[in-house]
Amino acid sequence: MSVTVAVDATGADLGPAEVARGAAQAAHGGLKVLLFGPAAPLEEALSEFPSADVEVVDAPVSIAKEADPARAVRQHPYASIVQAVRAVKDGDADAFVAAGATGAALAAGMSLLGRADGIRRPAIAAQIPLPEKAVTLLDMGANVSVRPEHLEQFAFMGRAFSQAVVGIEHPRVALLSNGEESISGTDLVREVHVRLSSHEGLGFIGNIDGASIPAGVADVVVTDGFTGNIALKAMEGVSTELFHLIRGTIEASSRGKAGGLLLRGPLRGLRDMLDPELQGGAYLLGLGALGVIAHGRFTELGFENAVARAGRAVEADLLGLTLNSLQSAGALHVRRKRTAPADTVVVNDA
Amino acid sequence: MSVTVAVDATGADLGPAEVARGAAQAAHGGLKVLLFGPAAPLEEALSEFPSADVEVVDAPVSIAKEADPARAVRQHPYASIVQAVRAVKDGDADAFVAAGATGAALAAGMSLLGRADGIRRPAIAAQIPLPEKAVTLLDMGANVSVRPEHLEQFAFMGRAFSQAVVGIEHPRVALLSNGEESISGTDLVREVHVRLSSHEGLGFIGNIDGASIPAGVADVVVTDGFTGNIALKAMEGVSTELFHLIRGTIEASSRGKAGGLLLRGPLRGLRDMLDPELQGGAYLLGLGALGVIAHGRFTELGFENAVARAGRAVEADLLGLTLNSLQSAGALHVRRKRTAPADTVVVNDA
Repeated sequence: MSVTVAVDATGADLGPAEVARGAAQAAHGGLKVLLFGPAAPLEEALSEFPSADVEVVDAPVSIAKEADPARAVRQHPYASIVQAVRAVKDGDADAFVAAGATGAALAAGMSLLGRADGIRRPAIAAQIPLPEKAVTLLDMGANVSVRPEHLEQFAFMGRAFSQAVVGIEHPRVALLSNGEESISGTDLVREVHVRLSSHEGLGFIGNIDGASIPAGVADVVVTDGFTGNIALKAMEGVSTELFHLIRGTIEASSRGKAGGLLLRGPLRGLRDMLDPELQGGAYLLGLGALGVIAHGRFTELGFENAVARAGRAVEADLLGLTLNSLQSAGALHVRRKRTAPADTVVVNDA
Repeated sequence: MSVTVAVDATGADLGPAEVARGAAQAAHGGLKVLLFGPAAPLEEALSEFPSADVEVVDAPVSIAKEADPARAVRQHPYASIVQAVRAVKDGDADAFVAAGATGAALAAGMSLLGRADGIRRPAIAAQIPLPEKAVTLLDMGANVSVRPEHLEQFAFMGRAFSQAVVGIEHPRVALLSNGEESISGTDLVREVHVRLSSHEGLGFIGNIDGASIPAGVADVVVTDGFTGNIALKAMEGVSTELFHLIRGTIEASSRGKAGGLLLRGPLRGLRDMLDPELQGGAYLLGLGALGVIAHGRFTELGFENAVARAGRAVEADLLGLTLNSLQSAGALHVRRKRTAPADTVVVNDA
């Protein structure tokens, strides 16, 4: 199967060449990359990878982090992210990867691709970087305020992602709350709990608390974008802080330094396993096609993983899987089509 | 100054004797403890501490974690937690410490002590266990759903706690959100941001994201009880998980084992510094008197700290400080008193 991924190379801390090197290393074995950004540095970086299947499209305009990303997307139709997403819309690519601002990528995706048929809201999914645990958390910030039917769909979207991209056949799906009891949480959480419990094929295991996310009790953890963003960043912050403290502890004594020398390899290995770059970034689910947001601070490894995972999602038909499972569960949103002319009386059956 | 703390000794994983040993070690230098629980094991444990100023009150009935703690409190007027809180109500003690279920302690506090005058809602405050950082996070779960005026008061309650108990003269107060921008967050967060910005003396530094909690960017972090509970538990969970991973890494090779031997002392020291027992538990703020909830899994050290901190809060007049700063800011809640007889017509000026 041949898959094409459109990559916006702008917005990375290390510059567009770093994105090009990462994309090039994923562009083989049937995966083609369309690379959008300033042509000169991209072409130069790609000269190191003569066999990579990458085509450069010169797109020197970049959209940075904006207070109103939707407006920025409208005002800059030739910005690299807009061109990359348009390539998907036009059928020249199957998914897109962005290194830049999440807001702009989401806005471009919403305005050009729109939501997939039957999906109420897109959601951002992320994987918790823990070794031997493949926990997917969503939403990570696309929706700060949600209704029960949104979280209900997120559960199915996360499940399909876990199956198609992470590779878990029967994911355990949980609802994040301030306790494990089914009556814990806000009114919203309690209503969502009831809804998720009604779907037999979902793999819903109930509510879990914050400590159960890193413990790996569930494979998919569903929450709103406000709570999810705070939980993920708090976990990343503690991880950063602990490694900082461990380094300080090791350097505080000569005995510690000697031990640190012996442990340098293993601890670095552990730190690498906790590296968010391994996960390739955050995943925009629920649009007409998959979008992946690589973090701006990533090195080429992160961009390679982002492109490879986008390709894997297309091959596994993530979107089809998602819609099928939502349809089987009766959780697809049927939009009323306004096809009747203005002078026709519409009789509503419902 | 003489301070009396009422302690419920039931509910601890290690049994009431462990609570007694902890309480006894705090009961000196003007701090007296009234200890409620089954008399025999308490007296036996206390025999090791002949100079401790502890008085035992036999109260063998304990309230466990309940779906409806308010009902349990009403049904068991002689339960140890109810008797301990009643001692505060009757003026026999100045604050209470519970080792058991948070719900029962909060319910007993609400029903017997009520809210402090001018306080809309009690909140549970916790300190993030990080060395050299004294970050107070509230609410931790007393209120899963809040209104803007609740979070506004929590900011002042947290500030007074940070000053009186943690010892920070000018605490930096922040609002937890999914970004640092003032427009980030839910509608609730945006309104609270505006309110907190209007209080000059509060020390409000703006919104912070989840990663900034463990980074120690603020001394007081304000959020609702749903989000706060999830953030705190997620951070504790990651910390537990990382130490588990580090141990596994050390034991995976002979080189690692040798390094681990050299680092055993420093790493254990670090782990001790991250121990929640150092903080003495969670603090019930906004009631007619301070309540402290020690975690059921604590050892005597945690109970000692809980009792000592309760005493320190009374000495520093935490409640008076809180109400004064709320009053100066015009953020005290004035309740309408229903003193008019039923047959009098009340003209409402408003």
